[in-house]
Amino acid sequence: MGDAPGNPLAGSNAFVGVAGFFTLRTVTWDDGRVRMIDQTALPNRFSYVVYTTPEQVASAIRTMVVRGAPAIGVAAAMGLALAARRSRATDLPGLVRDLEKSAAMLRSTRPTAVNLFWGIDRVLAKARASTSAKRAKEDVESEVKRMEDEDVATNRKLGGVGADLIRDGDTVLTQCNAGSLATVGYGTALGVIRAAVEQGKLVKVLVPETRPALQGARLTAFELARDGIPCTLIPDTAVGYMMSLGRVDRVVVGADRITRDGYVFNKIGTYQEAVLARRHGIPFHPAAPRSTFDLERAHDQVTIEERGAEEVVQIRGRRIAPKGVPVSNPAFDMTPPELVTSMITERGLVVPPFEETIAASMA
Amino acid sequence: MGDAPGNPLAGSNAFVGVAGFFTLRTVTWDDGRVRMIDQTALPNRFSYVVYTTPEQVASAIRTMVVRGAPAIGVAAAMGLALAARRSRATDLPGLVRDLEKSAAMLRSTRPTAVNLFWGIDRVLAKARASTSAKRAKEDVESEVKRMEDEDVATNRKLGGVGADLIRDGDTVLTQCNAGSLATVGYGTALGVIRAAVEQGKLVKVLVPETRPALQGARLTAFELARDGIPCTLIPDTAVGYMMSLGRVDRVVVGADRITRDGYVFNKIGTYQEAVLARRHGIPFHPAAPRSTFDLERAHDQVTIEERGAEEVVQIRGRRIAPKGVPVSNPAFDMTPPELVTSMITERGLVVPPFEETIAASMA
Repeated sequence: MGDAPGNPLAGSNAFVGVAGFFTLRTVTWDDGRVRMIDQTALPNRFSYVVYTTPEQVASAIRTMVVRGAPAIGVAAAMGLALAARRSRATDLPGLVRDLEKSAAMLRSTRPTAVNLFWGIDRVLAKARASTSAKRAKEDVESEVKRMEDEDVATNRKLGGVGADLIRDGDTVLTQCNAGSLATVGYGTALGVIRAAVEQGKLVKVLVPETRPALQGARLTAFELARDGIPCTLIPDTAVGYMMSLGRVDRVVVGADRITRDGYVFNKIGTYQEAVLARRHGIPFHPAAPRSTFDLERAHDQVTIEERGAEEVVQIRGRRIAPKGVPVSNPAFDMTPPELVTSMITERGLVVPPFEETIAASMA
Repeated sequence: MGDAPGNPLAGSNAFVGVAGFFTLRTVTWDDGRVRMIDQTALPNRFSYVVYTTPEQVASAIRTMVVRGAPAIGVAAAMGLALAARRSRATDLPGLVRDLEKSAAMLRSTRPTAVNLFWGIDRVLAKARASTSAKRAKEDVESEVKRMEDEDVATNRKLGGVGADLIRDGDTVLTQCNAGSLATVGYGTALGVIRAAVEQGKLVKVLVPETRPALQGARLTAFELARDGIPCTLIPDTAVGYMMSLGRVDRVVVGADRITRDGYVFNKIGTYQEAVLARRHGIPFHPAAPRSTFDLERAHDQVTIEERGAEEVVQIRGRRIAPKGVPVSNPAFDMTPPELVTSMITERGLVVPPFEETIAASMA
């Protein structure tokens, strides 16, 4: 399935669900196959890719065919379900060994989003708790289907929690894409926006393009335009200026990992949004499900992924910097708890002091 | 003259002057022709364009063939010198009328950098003070040649003032391109870096790519690599994170206009650098010549140029956002005086309180 190239906003009704929103699933389990929207081709082309091996799924995570913390958590889990399908082991320990091998490969794809490890661990635990290889294969498949459905339900719940913060007429600044395309569906930060719109509020979204991978320009603008939610795209350099003009009422972003001490790891550029929001007295909220919280680690135990220079020096195959220039390309940054107003989760708002409240609400 | 396409760093020695630095002039008067480096083609291709009419120069300023406040000031002045050459007026009032007509057109190209108006006014004043049309044409030409030479001398002086602030081993963050390519030669912010290197200091430069027009990636990285000054290119989203890691010792940027009350208008993204610098206790310095100071206006009397959406939704001809998405693309922003540590000028450092010191040092 795919649109004709050209105007991606002139899509078919297939994109619009009962609530009027983009309801296609970003990642889905299709009886032994993992189907994903190819996010590298957006917004120019809307298409699906189908994978049948865990290696293919690992490669899709690494190259950002699928990205967004909740989405890669579910995708990695489904990669393990593919490994279970393909395993020739006849006993449970043999199957678990096969899964652990694939799990190691899937874990090595990207280091920062904790949902990846959460998804893998959840499937492994399910397999280990089974009574036979045959039973484990069934359990693993029903578990990933459950995770897929849970993701959407969680985001709707989280969206409702966050929507209560949004006033009619607000302009919300986000970062990157924490939308349908970062999850199985509905989105986290954009789930908050969608839920506010479902409450009948007029919400406008200010979308920084989010260099280097341009998820704001390519994905968030695409999703919002599809859903008819008003948005304005800005260069990342204009975030502070927009705030200084009074054009931002609230910041809502996703998260890739929130540590037990309240530090928020999210797409590069989030930290500076938080600093700028503080200067301008604008509330700043990460929106994230339970699976994004890392209760085992403090902020100094997290690895921030450094990606290749080619993401920065080339855009869509065109060179934009001199050859050989050294590049630093951290994919994420860290926002300290003192810059966070509250965290939006499916379990309610988490408020300061985060080093106490996170443990209490997420246990 | 041009390089073969390919590695623009593998240039000839023609680029290297006695001090070892990029010494080609960005804009030069060549006996009735204005010669400019075509900055839209950099870093992929190094080439010159030659103009013989004021309309061509106006178009070059509008389309950023030439950009950078000091460079467009000199370019506009030279556009008027072309108008003088082409004028058929035989008496001085007739010539002045012709020049005023071209001046109006040149003034309408870009609204924010005050150097543009300064360059135009200086040439007009010279013509008006002449005694005949013939004499005025000569005076105008010698004036633009003087302005061209003065620009480089001013930047060297300003560079020396700023270099004294730089410590051996410092990493300096800049924004956009305030280098040779933003001036006739040597640069303002990059002039400070060059002067510090000439003093024997090791200086590293952190270069944000500066979306949307990518002057950091395309021009600053190009200039610095040519000159063998170590630099690292980063996405604009990584500015705050780099500061939080302790990787920035000082911020030095250019300016397009500094008003009498100490507000600094410069490339979009400068304001957020200043806010982030303040949070991290990093000194923040605009570097600008006298011609960038606007003693007649306060900050609320300046127009910030809004440029077209195509700069944001397309990069080098490739679409990176859905068609039809609304875009806000302010080319500049405004940094308030309380975020400025000191201003680097050819007349020395200007320090707070700026509403007093600017008037005193720039009168």
